[in-house]
Amino acid sequence: MAEPLKIALAGLGTVGVGVIRLVEANAQLIARRAGRPIQITVVSARDRNKARGVDLSPYAWEDDMVILGERTDVDVVVEMVGGSDGPALALARTTIEAGKALVTANKAMIAHHGLELAAKAEDKHVALKFEAAVAGGIPVIKGLREGAAANEIERVYGILNGTCNFILSTMEDTGRDFADVLAEAQARGFAEADPAFDVEGTDAAHKLSILAAIAFGSKIDFGAVDTAGITRLRAADIAQAAALGYVIRLIGMAETDGVDGNRTLFQRVQPHLVPVDHPLAHVDGATNAVVAEGNFSGRLLFQGAGAGDGPTASAVVADLIDIARGEVSHAFSMPVGELEALGPAETGHRQSRAYVRFMVADRPGVLAEITAALRDAGVSIESLIQKGRSGDAVMVAMVTHEGPESAVRKALSLLEGSDSLTEPPLVLQILGD
Amino acid sequence: MAEPLKIALAGLGTVGVGVIRLVEANAQLIARRAGRPIQITVVSARDRNKARGVDLSPYAWEDDMVILGERTDVDVVVEMVGGSDGPALALARTTIEAGKALVTANKAMIAHHGLELAAKAEDKHVALKFEAAVAGGIPVIKGLREGAAANEIERVYGILNGTCNFILSTMEDTGRDFADVLAEAQARGFAEADPAFDVEGTDAAHKLSILAAIAFGSKIDFGAVDTAGITRLRAADIAQAAALGYVIRLIGMAETDGVDGNRTLFQRVQPHLVPVDHPLAHVDGATNAVVAEGNFSGRLLFQGAGAGDGPTASAVVADLIDIARGEVSHAFSMPVGELEALGPAETGHRQSRAYVRFMVADRPGVLAEITAALRDAGVSIESLIQKGRSGDAVMVAMVTHEGPESAVRKALSLLEGSDSLTEPPLVLQILGD
Repeated sequence: MAEPLKIALAGLGTVGVGVIRLVEANAQLIARRAGRPIQITVVSARDRNKARGVDLSPYAWEDDMVILGERTDVDVVVEMVGGSDGPALALARTTIEAGKALVTANKAMIAHHGLELAAKAEDKHVALKFEAAVAGGIPVIKGLREGAAANEIERVYGILNGTCNFILSTMEDTGRDFADVLAEAQARGFAEADPAFDVEGTDAAHKLSILAAIAFGSKIDFGAVDTAGITRLRAADIAQAAALGYVIRLIGMAETDGVDGNRTLFQRVQPHLVPVDHPLAHVDGATNAVVAEGNFSGRLLFQGAGAGDGPTASAVVADLIDIARGEVSHAFSMPVGELEALGPAETGHRQSRAYVRFMVADRPGVLAEITAALRDAGVSIESLIQKGRSGDAVMVAMVTHEGPESAVRKALSLLEGSDSLTEPPLVLQILGD
Repeated sequence: MAEPLKIALAGLGTVGVGVIRLVEANAQLIARRAGRPIQITVVSARDRNKARGVDLSPYAWEDDMVILGERTDVDVVVEMVGGSDGPALALARTTIEAGKALVTANKAMIAHHGLELAAKAEDKHVALKFEAAVAGGIPVIKGLREGAAANEIERVYGILNGTCNFILSTMEDTGRDFADVLAEAQARGFAEADPAFDVEGTDAAHKLSILAAIAFGSKIDFGAVDTAGITRLRAADIAQAAALGYVIRLIGMAETDGVDGNRTLFQRVQPHLVPVDHPLAHVDGATNAVVAEGNFSGRLLFQGAGAGDGPTASAVVADLIDIARGEVSHAFSMPVGELEALGPAETGHRQSRAYVRFMVADRPGVLAEITAALRDAGVSIESLIQKGRSGDAVMVAMVTHEGPESAVRKALSLLEGSDSLTEPPLVLQILGD
């Protein structure tokens, strides 16, 4: 059998240790499929002596992880350190500059520095791979980059954050409020002590910006993702959505707008109302799912575990097997120089139906004030419900007929500053076909 | 830009023409992603003068398709002729012998001759690719071969025939019987004039045998697939399943049994009862879906259009892009010589719950006869319902508790020849977790 592919592993948290476990458990199978063994030769982490539940004695130890790629016993560096900058980025740069391949699960680093790293990897003719950075164990980067490569992708969207999906589906099942379910998720280890990255939508936005670049052949533009999280959702919103035939899911969605030569890129992370007969409505718990709509393939759906050490390790080692088989093709499916810089899309003209929820003071005339503003902005109401009190406020929730997003925004601007509203209105798009 | 990849296209039916349309429509995008243009140079079909709705004048014409691979203006032959043997197989053999890559959507040919062709392709160091042979536009071959490559696959199963799924979901929605829905599907072009290949399960069995070989590193053994179709299902079965919380789907399922060194291969195509909360229960119409359960990835689901000219062309051209990028790795993920020859699994000891339906004469004592046979065979009944007449017969349907398949078989053998039964009993497995 051919020479082993020699791996340096940086970062020995849960997912780093998962890679060790996988490479050990499935060693024979991996060698058969890859055509040669995949062998971890050296590991590095901040603390050498921490108990991790795996035996590190078969592997060399490197104190300075940044130089892993310069070692002669290393062909590929697996970066499992995390963080968009700092040691992870330093390691990525030195590895590629040393002419070694890099595999990472680091969505933040790729969202912020992926283009720079991909350009460097092209220069050095080495692979840069990050299947595990998006949707955990689901081979969705491969699905877009290769499986759907023949298609113009019209839209890519999905459930990209398992923590949010766990919280939302638990709120749905139990009728409990956000803060309550979040606290439970934290206690049970499903959410971080500082959950902002997840529940504010940043993590999903990182992933979406990566998917968009691959789907549309565009430069990553994480900063342009219109991002909202799930923190403002109430149990009553979920109940109301259910009564109307929807579930609420945090959806990341990207598509191009405009015509060739003047294309723009729409990228949004926001809770959406998802019709119960849509495949994404049945994605529960920490599961992720991505839909890509191609002009010939039609709708493709990829679904699976979005996080966890096993699934993440599965994606990392799939990348390693590709490298062992000789793959060095472009990280974003085409050379970085050919990726288009697409400006952010105007969203005002986007046609959609929306769920709009107001918390209002319980006094006469408030409903008239709201409906007048909607009328004056040209928003047509499909259904409206006023619910009983929640504290001092009353909930007024409605679904609009299809119309431009600008109209809803105008209606809200007309109501801005009104002392009838006890908090800013909440607007959620309804996922269309 | 680099030299184009030169394609010969054999077979100009709907899907062959779909490949032309795709290559023309997405030419620029394909060239950017593949790193070089993909250019059809020559085409061939039985009848040169048939109207096909595309302009063939840009392409050379070859009367004798079998020699396409020998032409100097051809790098890859795309075989869209169909049929397990005959011209398709002759073309595949001559193409690979001429040292050219072969891309095919021909599941029957791969199920019967895939190992021979893959061995030849290895000898000649050329690619043999057949993404379009399984589940149409869904990149599930790639998903298993590469995306899930790090995993020991514990089970692979799915909805592999769009015609059957269309018929079953229409029966479910309308309450109509099989023959009636089949006739409509034929009239509307969703089912062939001779539907046996689809409705008897053969087509799904072809696809399952290919998936199993890739998932388990085993030699294709199409002949060993335990195959049943959907022709015996009644509207009453679907209604009964619904009342119990299930839908009925034709599921192809494969897994290995036994231990290393003495592994066996279980392969079955059969209508199953699928719990309504399972992702496959929401796969309606002509959609296909495949689940692969990996020992690290967990459950991966791939879903999309299982047939049609656009999706099939999408998969064919994805293979061409892989070839243009330089891929020549093994068709079945590892060299043919390393694939294990696994004998067929014994199924008697398989533990499952089953739906068993009897059509019986409407007279006293029949229920006692059936339940006595079940008791004597050790089958424990979870629920049983006796429904009103259908013609002269009465339907008795039950769900068993979990137990060995052999027990149900024994019960049925005890009842064999009984003139209480107006037709042979129908046994459907219930899809477990």
